[in-house]
Amino acid sequence: MPITVVGLDGDDTLWHNETRFILTQEELRELLHRHVPEADVDSHLAGVEMHNLGVYGYGVKAFTLSMIETAIQVTEGRIPAADLEVILGWGKRMLNEPTELLNGVEPAVRELSERYDLLLITKGDLFDQESKLARSGLADLFLGVEVVSEKSAGAYRGILARRGIKAGEFVMVGNSLRSDILPVLELGARAVHVPYHVTWHHEQVPEESLPDTGWYRLERIGEVSRLLAEL
Amino acid sequence: MPITVVGLDGDDTLWHNETRFILTQEELRELLHRHVPEADVDSHLAGVEMHNLGVYGYGVKAFTLSMIETAIQVTEGRIPAADLEVILGWGKRMLNEPTELLNGVEPAVRELSERYDLLLITKGDLFDQESKLARSGLADLFLGVEVVSEKSAGAYRGILARRGIKAGEFVMVGNSLRSDILPVLELGARAVHVPYHVTWHHEQVPEESLPDTGWYRLERIGEVSRLLAEL
Repeated sequence: MPITVVGLDGDDTLWHNETRFILTQEELRELLHRHVPEADVDSHLAGVEMHNLGVYGYGVKAFTLSMIETAIQVTEGRIPAADLEVILGWGKRMLNEPTELLNGVEPAVRELSERYDLLLITKGDLFDQESKLARSGLADLFLGVEVVSEKSAGAYRGILARRGIKAGEFVMVGNSLRSDILPVLELGARAVHVPYHVTWHHEQVPEESLPDTGWYRLERIGEVSRLLAEL
Repeated sequence: MPITVVGLDGDDTLWHNETRFILTQEELRELLHRHVPEADVDSHLAGVEMHNLGVYGYGVKAFTLSMIETAIQVTEGRIPAADLEVILGWGKRMLNEPTELLNGVEPAVRELSERYDLLLITKGDLFDQESKLARSGLADLFLGVEVVSEKSAGAYRGILARRGIKAGEFVMVGNSLRSDILPVLELGARAVHVPYHVTWHHEQVPEESLPDTGWYRLERIGEVSRLLAEL
């Protein structure tokens, strides 16, 4: 069955995302080391984030709340409120940052949009994702936007069913094996993995857990169009 | 054209929402008065929330971040981190609270679901809203769930278009004139206002701004089914 609909992930597929978290996390480390020079800020924050995932979900607001919690715990409550205000400011800065597209994304998405219906399928914070898309300049190229709280097979199934898309005519393109590739293959749809140079630990899955066929790996999103033409 | 699809708002239409914000806000007032007895916490918080709306959007995480910001500002940075940790805890408690349905909602929604396709149309935090619906016990009665970042006419138009629903066969039921009634009437669809006993100031619109026809007001959601049968 020929592909008619291409799903594209947003964060770290179309635009940089993980990088802004990493840079802010460096600032947090530096800030907290002024109070507790020996603290292992990164692993403490990772633990707090994992613990909060079920109650906060994904996104910058969740990250900001987890940074504040980490700061209080790591300093055993000795951090002054003024420093926590700085952390609040980092969260707002992240939410306001311009959407920085990855190399080659604009022409690649434009080319795909001429031949296929495009859906942006992202997880995270609805408000933040819509705002990022609006600032990306790409919004007009998409037929629709789907923000889901978790990219499970069920979530993809719901999107395809609601839009009357058959699994065989759908391909998902994204940087996360766990969120963009595995669940899509489970439905019998196809997937293209375009890795990003950093991946949040939570998104990592062992390569062995993937089926041998039905998915492809490309270095650059600009190669997707040619691959799909050959399928 | 007969009604075939009923949109239902969630917060303060199906389940209590504003109440949990009001109760937490009372606790914040009390906590901050221990540091600054004269502070007008409520109006300071309202200002911070309004100011943050464009960057945070709606929901409990946004509210928690705005409470922390308010606490720091009102105490001029003198609030101890331990108290801010308490505020973080309030946010988590709100997110974990059981979904408390309004009186009569369960039988009313069940009755409607036998005759119409039901869509839950809410705004706010995607993760929180899905979690509330899951805990409400009502999820199976809905054909679909739409969480939008803002209930504008455009947002409703998008939902109807995507699902192939004509405006004439759609009715929206909700407690907010601003979010559930006005934008829906703009599309030529119909709407039923079921007021809640408290309404967030941001949601209030002057009654004069509403058209004379196309909408109805009912005391109880249990009366919706009979009204629709008469349309």
